[in-house]
Amino acid sequence: MNGRGVGAPVDLDATSAPLVTVDVDERRLAWAYLSRVVEGPCPALSALIAQVGVVEAARAVRECDLPESLRGPTERRREIDRAERDLETMARVGGRLITPDDPEWPQWRLLGLTQLDPARDVDAAVPLALWARGPLSLQQYTEQSLAVVGARCSTGYGEQATAELAGELAAHGWTIVSGAAFGIDGTAHRAALAVGGFTVAVLACGVDRPYPAQHERLLAEIAETGLVVSEYPPGATAYKHRFLARNRLIAALSEGVLVVEAGVRSGARNTAKWARRLGRPALAVPGPITAAASVGCHRMIRDREAILVTRLEDIHDEVGPLRLSLPTGAGSEPDLSGDQAAVFAELPVVGSRLPRQIADASGLAVASVRAALAGLEVTGLVGADSSGWFRTVRKSG
Amino acid sequence: MNGRGVGAPVDLDATSAPLVTVDVDERRLAWAYLSRVVEGPCPALSALIAQVGVVEAARAVRECDLPESLRGPTERRREIDRAERDLETMARVGGRLITPDDPEWPQWRLLGLTQLDPARDVDAAVPLALWARGPLSLQQYTEQSLAVVGARCSTGYGEQATAELAGELAAHGWTIVSGAAFGIDGTAHRAALAVGGFTVAVLACGVDRPYPAQHERLLAEIAETGLVVSEYPPGATAYKHRFLARNRLIAALSEGVLVVEAGVRSGARNTAKWARRLGRPALAVPGPITAAASVGCHRMIRDREAILVTRLEDIHDEVGPLRLSLPTGAGSEPDLSGDQAAVFAELPVVGSRLPRQIADASGLAVASVRAALAGLEVTGLVGADSSGWFRTVRKSG
Repeated sequence: MNGRGVGAPVDLDATSAPLVTVDVDERRLAWAYLSRVVEGPCPALSALIAQVGVVEAARAVRECDLPESLRGPTERRREIDRAERDLETMARVGGRLITPDDPEWPQWRLLGLTQLDPARDVDAAVPLALWARGPLSLQQYTEQSLAVVGARCSTGYGEQATAELAGELAAHGWTIVSGAAFGIDGTAHRAALAVGGFTVAVLACGVDRPYPAQHERLLAEIAETGLVVSEYPPGATAYKHRFLARNRLIAALSEGVLVVEAGVRSGARNTAKWARRLGRPALAVPGPITAAASVGCHRMIRDREAILVTRLEDIHDEVGPLRLSLPTGAGSEPDLSGDQAAVFAELPVVGSRLPRQIADASGLAVASVRAALAGLEVTGLVGADSSGWFRTVRKSG
Repeated sequence: MNGRGVGAPVDLDATSAPLVTVDVDERRLAWAYLSRVVEGPCPALSALIAQVGVVEAARAVRECDLPESLRGPTERRREIDRAERDLETMARVGGRLITPDDPEWPQWRLLGLTQLDPARDVDAAVPLALWARGPLSLQQYTEQSLAVVGARCSTGYGEQATAELAGELAAHGWTIVSGAAFGIDGTAHRAALAVGGFTVAVLACGVDRPYPAQHERLLAEIAETGLVVSEYPPGATAYKHRFLARNRLIAALSEGVLVVEAGVRSGARNTAKWARRLGRPALAVPGPITAAASVGCHRMIRDREAILVTRLEDIHDEVGPLRLSLPTGAGSEPDLSGDQAAVFAELPVVGSRLPRQIADASGLAVASVRAALAGLEVTGLVGADSSGWFRTVRKSG
């Protein structure tokens, strides 16, 4: 390492990099090329891109016109350029490459990763780009998102707890982020899907590869209504070290990490550790002391690495959005009628809902729900953010 | 309250009070009389006794020659003097009155209560005296004692956890202090008895009354090998407010309080709160989040009112005696033979054992065990305190 720029916060806003006139496709091809060259986080390359722009960085890598610190990480694959083919492969499976150039790049969520020290941990870096399948905007649906992760060898108890908590969270507008693994991860994704909520699966392999293979159908379902995301290019295999880098992404894309069951050496503990490094809450669900699957959760709680939570209210206390609570007059319920009353009744006391969800629950048409919400907003009873609509006043009495 | 002396630390050492020549029986009768007059903690009376001595305090109460602060608390029963009868009743059931005059008065354990502010809480006071049944010395057997308390409506899981933890603790020389209630309390006492350990039941009624009635046999068994203790005189009924005062005594007589299961409003939480007020650790065992019986434990852990523990090692980390751990040479086991090897092998890695227990486990005669221990002590491999004998070196490899 010659240290130039490396270690300093990386400027994610690519427009501030010296922009020569290159067309969008050339930039996208450069991102795709570099994404395969390093396959995973590479703080030195991120720093170079921030400095000279992605197209120039790609040229420099190709021609090995590089500082010492980047020769090693790029040497092995710099001659492999499958950028075009990779983008085509993704298009074929209905996927895309999300880069810092794109509006759906989750810049704010990933900002935390730029604050870490890459000298201490090579994974402590922003991903170069993300490969994705699914209709959701990565930026929008990770604004109110919680990671729910845990043991592959889960118990019936752990699965029940996951289904209840993840289901409730998803019903309250939280996007459930997880790793699509057996056990708790899979249960968390399914719980979100079951309530018509949103879920994001972050993989340690290419998003065109179902991993684990037995979750092919689950991943297809997530890709249909949510998002399957990876920083590894199409076809990439799920190697062990990639799971660790993947865990940091799960944490980085979430407001906090909830661990439901975890053995002593669980990957879920690693994900929770990333949350703490990012300054976000790590939460853990306790279980019977007789169950090996809960040992990791108990250890984390005991060692103050995680906060014990048992229900939605506990989780909201730690990661809930800060919302204005305007007290109404002496103990009075808002005096509403018609659609407004019906719509207000369907808004949860804590958390938010989308118009579609309110329509489903109330039996009103989505247009009527929208009209009622607009009226309620004027009176100050409800508000909206990217996660949906919420009450600004609490039910009293 | 006129405040004279009240609130200042009470001097428990009765010998420093102005001693006129009274015989021991007169003092004992005075304690017994006062114990029935106030029936429970009375900081103002404790202060008076510290000031003028117990015999003079008894006279002052009898004749209502009292400061304003003591007239109220003593008025109703000051004319009832059953001291002689009470002492006789106790003698008949093999019991006794333990007073600050007696060597077995647990002065150090109770000292914490003198540091609290009785103006804030009338129960925040040292008991005047304690009525007891059982062969153990209260002072000696509360030197390494832990309260194990919990829900009356316990679950099979909670009882299993209690039986294991309390059994292990008792086997390691801990005296198990509890309240003899249904559920966790009863299970904790039984677990200690089952391993031949020591247990102390603290009652909210007279120690001559079995409460609850269904635990008559359990209490009789405790009175045979352990201790049944109360600050209420013989025949006293278990009123509600006495349970709260009793809870403070359970905490005060223990190194810490372990709560195994507790509902939201459990008395066990009250006992744990006393531990915290006394500056001693409150520990709680987690359980399934689906069980109402664990809600109180989870709440305490979450709110940092208690430390999560799941096994003996966790408990020892919080309340274990500080012991010298002399490292032996490079990975070597102490080179022992004969009785010394057998005796050393029977000493637990953590905790201590009594010579009788080592004799039972090793098949050696108690005298041989004692001889071997003396030899081991000379070489520095073992040490002893009131709880028994322990290893000063850890097993390596």
